[in-house]
Amino acid sequence: MRTSRRSAVDSFIVMDVMEAARAAEATGQDVIHMEVGQPGTPAPKLARDGLNRAMEAGPLGYTVALGLPALRERIARHYGEVYGVDVAPSRIVVTSGSSAGFILSFLSLFDAGQRVGIADPGYPSYRNILGALDLQAVRIEGTVANRFQPTVADITPDLDGLLVASPANPTGSMLDRAALGALVQACEAADVALISDEIYHGIEYEGRAVTALELTDDVFVINSFSKYFSMTGWRIGWMVVPDSHVRVLERLAQNLFICPPHASQIAALHAMDAGQELDENAKVYARNRAVLLDALPKAGLRDIAPPDGAFYIYANIAHTGLDSRSFTARLLAEEGVAATPGLDFDPVRGHETVRFSYAGPSAAIAEGAVRIARFMASLSDSAQKE
Amino acid sequence: MRTSRRSAVDSFIVMDVMEAARAAEATGQDVIHMEVGQPGTPAPKLARDGLNRAMEAGPLGYTVALGLPALRERIARHYGEVYGVDVAPSRIVVTSGSSAGFILSFLSLFDAGQRVGIADPGYPSYRNILGALDLQAVRIEGTVANRFQPTVADITPDLDGLLVASPANPTGSMLDRAALGALVQACEAADVALISDEIYHGIEYEGRAVTALELTDDVFVINSFSKYFSMTGWRIGWMVVPDSHVRVLERLAQNLFICPPHASQIAALHAMDAGQELDENAKVYARNRAVLLDALPKAGLRDIAPPDGAFYIYANIAHTGLDSRSFTARLLAEEGVAATPGLDFDPVRGHETVRFSYAGPSAAIAEGAVRIARFMASLSDSAQKE
Repeated sequence: MRTSRRSAVDSFIVMDVMEAARAAEATGQDVIHMEVGQPGTPAPKLARDGLNRAMEAGPLGYTVALGLPALRERIARHYGEVYGVDVAPSRIVVTSGSSAGFILSFLSLFDAGQRVGIADPGYPSYRNILGALDLQAVRIEGTVANRFQPTVADITPDLDGLLVASPANPTGSMLDRAALGALVQACEAADVALISDEIYHGIEYEGRAVTALELTDDVFVINSFSKYFSMTGWRIGWMVVPDSHVRVLERLAQNLFICPPHASQIAALHAMDAGQELDENAKVYARNRAVLLDALPKAGLRDIAPPDGAFYIYANIAHTGLDSRSFTARLLAEEGVAATPGLDFDPVRGHETVRFSYAGPSAAIAEGAVRIARFMASLSDSAQKE
Repeated sequence: MRTSRRSAVDSFIVMDVMEAARAAEATGQDVIHMEVGQPGTPAPKLARDGLNRAMEAGPLGYTVALGLPALRERIARHYGEVYGVDVAPSRIVVTSGSSAGFILSFLSLFDAGQRVGIADPGYPSYRNILGALDLQAVRIEGTVANRFQPTVADITPDLDGLLVASPANPTGSMLDRAALGALVQACEAADVALISDEIYHGIEYEGRAVTALELTDDVFVINSFSKYFSMTGWRIGWMVVPDSHVRVLERLAQNLFICPPHASQIAALHAMDAGQELDENAKVYARNRAVLLDALPKAGLRDIAPPDGAFYIYANIAHTGLDSRSFTARLLAEEGVAATPGLDFDPVRGHETVRFSYAGPSAAIAEGAVRIARFMASLSDSAQKE
């Protein structure tokens, strides 16, 4: 049977690492999981209890395409409470995870062949979803100097859209109010549609993350219950869109998704009131981050991106003489630590970089730090012997 | 902000009916719901209990993109048990409802501009998803004579794909083994990719529905837990694809969806063992169908499509002198019965047709039949007076 050209997208390399880690565990090896970008914690207890009650109360049939009205209202309130921004519930679009948010954004904004800027390193699916929908991903090369984020110099008239992420995956770096404001202005001036991926909001260390909605209403904001709310597998998220686009998105969502998962919408609604449990999770990430920021530079990892938020450390390993796939394969085989090669995030320079996730339990991350240090020492020992 | 051309898809008219029905109920009117294509029953008890246990046992994080291995194996076993067909679990792709199955099928098979045949009347999202993905829906006009289904004469060399549904929405008509076999052969001969929508399988009255997998492995089969398994809002379904396409779909699914909702996958796995409860639901549909097949022709509804399966009656109302939007609006206002205008399913001829869903409780459907008869009588009374 035929296969389309546009389906020739890359796979996630992290999936190969996960499979190798699973195989290692099956042989009895004790593996520290620093490869996957997801919390080790379940959905908050309030969320699970709320779903339990709802399942007893009646059938969970289709909801309207834009999501349960109560959830849209609760999300709108969140913007007032957390950011002091007034957002009408009518502008909230509940989605089947941020994945659906990207699909809906790209389809509603861009026609085949148009060009969307994304920073490298970045979340690999940006490039791959764009490609599957016949759009061109335009690579913006991030550097330590620009915190791996786009700058106004990158907003050129040949772009149709710009996708920014703050805090970013894999670097954790954030755009402050001035930097994000400059991008907002440059995009408006150049008629470039701005999409702001804010799925790591709530997981911040040095200062509060700024939502693009503090600066403009003319933006697509994408968010998710996966990370701060600890609900990855529930596939539930939301967008905030300009008034002008609500009806377009409603029609697209009706046809492409019918509605987001009803059970996940109910769990998400209750999760938004679980601040105490979620803040405990965030404290674990903060402890883990401190451990790694102390241990990894001492172990010899270099050019660590500023980890302002999220739960990742992105570091350079070029000086070890190993490419990132060999580095992560040997780290797993020799020390039982799973990490992700940078090639998932930066197809050009990712052979020199590795991402470590510290979303897991503190004891595991602390043990991971010890093992990484031992692995790095073994590499320099063998280099000296050669 | 800009809006793409390809996002200009139609909305579901049924959504307007649902909103009108909700508004009528808010004023105290007692509304019989014959508009929505979903069971009034919840997910099976086994499914809800299974999910409750899983939520207590651990976090429901991401699963692999193709779905939980246990669920893929259970679905494969289903093909052996129900159809006597041997399907390898590796060919099963668990999806976020059949909606994701359509997106993944279309993207993996077709490039922008290619042409896919669909029968009118048919499920409205076929046309709209195709349009959003830059594909051309080619209209195949169904008639009572061909049971509203495509025939080999419709398989022309200018088609790239053909989508068939059996049992079909909105007609309920099925393709028997000979008719489906002829389409399979014609598609293979003309290099037309065949997609078989089998989401109403299990809800059959006159004979067993035939899966395309009984006839060929060179087909994309799309199925869902929404209808027979009574899990619409859970957004969980599956595809069976040729071996050659598993890896392509895995990469697309990783990037576009990450994974289907984990909670829904667990519930679906347990739902597959709830045959007794599900068969009770199916008996309700059979009783409702018998009531309507007796009452509606007597009431004066015409050209009813052969309702071999699913839970719909599709009928012609042209002789009432009302167009289908007026017909359904007045039926709701005067008798409190919500039904769907045919325009959702057939943009050309749907002003003459109406779809009644009989997925609800038997008492409601019986009362609906009485009210529809009274409404039809009032129309002919007023026609005589004029």
